[in-house]
Formats: sequence, C-alpha cells, structure tokens
Amino acid sequence: MYSIGIDIGGMSIKAGLVKDGKIVSSNRKVTAPTSGQSLENLIVQINALLSENSLTEKDIAGIGIGCPGLISSEEGVVDHNSNMKWENFHLVDLLKQSFNVKIKLSNDANVAALGETVYGSAAQYKNAIMLTLGTGVGGGIIIDGKLYEGGFSKGAELGHMVIVKDGEKCGCGRRGCLEAYASATGLIRMTKTAMKNAPDSAMWNYVDGDINKVGGKTAFECAKAGDKAAEKVISEYVAYLAEGIMNLANIFRPEVFIIGGGVSAQGKYLTDRLKGYCEKFNYGYTNAPKFDIVTATLGNDAGIIGAAALVV
Amino acid sequence: MYSIGIDIGGMSIKAGLVKDGKIVSSNRKVTAPTSGQSLENLIVQINALLSENSLTEKDIAGIGIGCPGLISSEEGVVDHNSNMKWENFHLVDLLKQSFNVKIKLSNDANVAALGETVYGSAAQYKNAIMLTLGTGVGGGIIIDGKLYEGGFSKGAELGHMVIVKDGEKCGCGRRGCLEAYASATGLIRMTKTAMKNAPDSAMWNYVDGDINKVGGKTAFECAKAGDKAAEKVISEYVAYLAEGIMNLANIFRPEVFIIGGGVSAQGKYLTDRLKGYCEKFNYGYTNAPKFDIVTATLGNDAGIIGAAALVV
Repeated sequence: MYSIGIDIGGMSIKAGLVKDGKIVSSNRKVTAPTSGQSLENLIVQINALLSENSLTEKDIAGIGIGCPGLISSEEGVVDHNSNMKWENFHLVDLLKQSFNVKIKLSNDANVAALGETVYGSAAQYKNAIMLTLGTGVGGGIIIDGKLYEGGFSKGAELGHMVIVKDGEKCGCGRRGCLEAYASATGLIRMTKTAMKNAPDSAMWNYVDGDINKVGGKTAFECAKAGDKAAEKVISEYVAYLAEGIMNLANIFRPEVFIIGGGVSAQGKYLTDRLKGYCEKFNYGYTNAPKFDIVTATLGNDAGIIGAAALVV
Repeated sequence: MYSIGIDIGGMSIKAGLVKDGKIVSSNRKVTAPTSGQSLENLIVQINALLSENSLTEKDIAGIGIGCPGLISSEEGVVDHNSNMKWENFHLVDLLKQSFNVKIKLSNDANVAALGETVYGSAAQYKNAIMLTLGTGVGGGIIIDGKLYEGGFSKGAELGHMVIVKDGEKCGCGRRGCLEAYASATGLIRMTKTAMKNAPDSAMWNYVDGDINKVGGKTAFECAKAGDKAAEKVISEYVAYLAEGIMNLANIFRPEVFIIGGGVSAQGKYLTDRLKGYCEKFNYGYTNAPKFDIVTATLGNDAGIIGAAALVV
C-alpha cells in the first residue's frame, strides 16, 4: 500500500508518495519565511500527489510528517518551529480537516532514524541509534523496531549529552555537549583551530588559502592524503564521536549505530575509524554485546521515507 | 497476593515474602565465598518463607530475583557474577525444578529502580531513572511503568557514561565516566584531595586527623557546618552528578530521578542542590518538561521489594 511522507525543512516542504520504502512520486514547495501558520501549500502538495497518481485517500495507509523543532507527537502538535513560525500549532488536527486518513507527526531526527531502520541501512536490525551529524547533532532511538521519543516525546536529544564537562559552549546553554564536538560545525571549528596552528598544513591549499572555505570535508580529505595536522583533527573528532557512541551503547545496547548527515559521506573511512576506537574499550564494546556502525543510505530521501514509515 | 523477592548480594542472600509492596516476612543467609553455583541455600530460604507463613506455591504470584553482575534476563541466566562464582548459570531454569511458579531475574540496579517506581519514592510516576550512588553508580530505567534493560538486557549502565573526556580512570577501562565522579568512591577521592590542599579544613577534625576515616558523609557534614573546603567539594560533586542527570533527562525526559545508595542519605539537602544546578540550564530543565529529583525510600528493602515487583 502507498503512504505519504512529508518532510518539513528549513527552506521547503517536500511531499512524497512512498511504496515499499521507495519514493514513487514527489514534489517540493519553497516556504515563504513570512507565511506563518498556513497549511494551504501542504494541502495542495498532498492533493497533487494523489491526483497525479490517480489515487484517493482510500489508497493510502496514511500521512506521516517529520518536522524540526519541539513536537508533541501524541497530540500531533508542533510546540515550536521557528522557520515555519509555528507555535502550539495543531498540525495533525488541522490536516485531518482536509484528509480523512491516519496522520502522524514526529521530530525530523526521529523520523530519519525510523526510515533507516525500516527501509535503509539498518533494515536488518530492531534496535538502533541514529546520530545525524550536521549543523547540530540530531538523535533518533529505535527500540524493538519502534520509535522511542522519550517522555512527552521530548527526549532522544542525543546531541545534548555533555561529554566534556566545562568544555566548548553549546547552543543549548550547557558546555561540552556531544553536539559541540561531533557536529559538522564542531569539526569545522576544530579544523580551523588546527590550521591556525599549522601554517604549512596541506589544508591551507585545500581551501585556496581562505579559512572561510573550510568545510566538513577539509580535514577528512587532507588526512586521507597524509597531512599530519588534518590527521590529528580527524583523530580527535573520531574520539569525541566514539565516546558519545559508547555512552549510548552502555545505556541502550543497540545492535547498530547509524551515522547520518553531511559527515556520513565519509562512509567506511569514518565507520572503520569509529569501530577501531570503540574496540579499545572492552567494557563498552569487546566484552559487551557487539554493535555495528554504519552510515545512512537514504540520504536526502530519509525525511520523506522516514515520515511515511510513521503510518506503515 | 503474595510474591517472593530474592536479593542476591555480595555477602548474603536475602529472601522476603512481599504483599502490597511491604515485606511481611524475610530471612537472610550469608554466602560462603567458595560455595560456587549451589542453589541449595536459596531453596531452603524460599521453602522456609512459605512454610513459616503457612503458604504454598499457589498462594504466590511468583519469585523475582535481583542479582548483581551480567544478566540475561529473558533467558533467566546469570552470565557472570564474581561473588557467587556463577558463570553462564541458568538460575531461573534450575529454580523452576523446585518451584512451579513464575520466576523472573534481573540486574540488582534495575530491580531497585522498579521497586522505587512501583512501591517507593516514585510511585506516582510512570517514567523514572534511578541512580544508585555507592561504590559505583548503578542505573535503572523505567519507561511507561516497565523496566527497560536495554538490548540483550545489558544496557542501563548509566554510570558508564563519560562526562569528562580523558578524565579520571574508571573501572570499566574508560576515562571520565559518571561513576568515577558521582559514586561514593568518587566523592571520597575528591574529599581526600581537597583535605590535602586544605590542612586547616574542619574535615580533618571530623575524621580525627586520619584521612583513612574519610567517608561519603565527611564533606557533606562539614559543608553543612560551614567549612569552605568541604563546600567546594560538595559543589563540585553536585555539578558532576547534575550533569549526568541532565544528560539522561535530554535522552529520556523522565518525570523523576531517584537517587539511591549511601549518598542518598543526604536527602533534601542533596536533591535541592541538584535541582538548583539543573535549573540554571534552560534547555535541559526550565524550558523542557520538568522532572523531579527525589531520594529512594525503600532503603535496604529495595532489593527484596523490587525483585518481588518483577512478578507482580
């Protein structure tokens, strides 16, 4: 059966018709930053998907929605989303006025984890933790094949786990959160610091001498090419991320960790180094039930496919 | 209905007949360290409870067992317990040869959390995290009123979450775990270090000038009496423990944290200071769903009552 997945992003809303974990049809609308709480566009997008594929409500299992911000998933309410200017926005109830189908809402990071576990890189596992490494660090937890969102559906904020007490300032107000180190933002900060201390590093060539061009790939690519300063950055970055992974392993003992977001483009190079670090610590790895570390495979489709998985 | 709770400790096995969360009858046998895998004593203890109270198997809901070490709870197997010298010990199956009732096994820290949530300090809550602060830091997680043990029933090792990367060495092989700071052992280490740096601290009087007499109360009692060096120790101790609590709050968003173990004797003095620290951080506390912090109330009975709760 078909289902519809909605991926509400910072700049656009993507809607997709999904069957067996594959997007068979999709559309995208850029959101006007002043549009406020209107659902008009979204309703047009969903109706377009149905009509263009000669389907009616009866042909779909439901509509799943992934949305950044604070979500009350059981109530179907977006408590707060700054991009859409939604505050205490009863998204599910409002959408039900137009579509008489099952409609589910969850946080975007949760939805990505669900998509990867049902249809993506972790499809053979029932217990998984996803860390999405981008501007921040998003978290998703799958227990026995089901999304675990924490109490009040406000948990799974895995990026906001302090691993360096009194460390780098985090956007959440605390210091030393995993997010401050393992995000692409953290990686870029560490790369820039290393470059300032190593004027002869190959990283300077990589960015044409312009430190503002440093990105999440800079240190990775230069480390692969043998640059010592870059290698040190990656070694430290892997250590921070691996400590976060082992913390979560000791709490959840998942079968797999899924790495998503921009940094996950490093694939096996990253996961092999993470596994190498974890293997050094027998309590959390060698003597405990093993876990795999993989990178996400759904890529840009994760939002739509994961959202659709909410209603399958 | 009655149930039987078994608390397997390092030095003894305690067995209790429990009704409505209260121990109505109990016995205790010291374990010979060389006794190996025998269950003889335990069977005698259970039979004594039944006969002394004129009960038969039919009168009890079952037998619950809390045991330290590595447990496979679904299989009813003690993978490893060094005190009892049990390795891959099929405790539940063996006990079922003598008692034809429901028998459940779990880790001692998990069982304590269940007891506190069903019958103790957190009886009004469905989502709770317990931290038992003693020689180490034990963890227990209750989600929707049920024990969550993590995958392979090997999770909930909340003490082995690194909060200070490259910090104090932990028994688990990593550095900077919550256990290395928030356990009584960690508190005593910090107290001794502070005393060495403050020869005029009142803490020296408290221990009659003998640093070997430092215990988990030393810094707490002297801080209450106004000693500056002691106050600094407690302030740091509270900070470490509170960072661990906020990490877990961001993951689980429980309604309550339960503090157990020796340190919990500090009661409201400790929980008020913990709340004060958490309130400073709006992401994890003020703007997020509130959580309470309480101390355990079942005390030495937690093991028996919690174990009995496994079969209720």
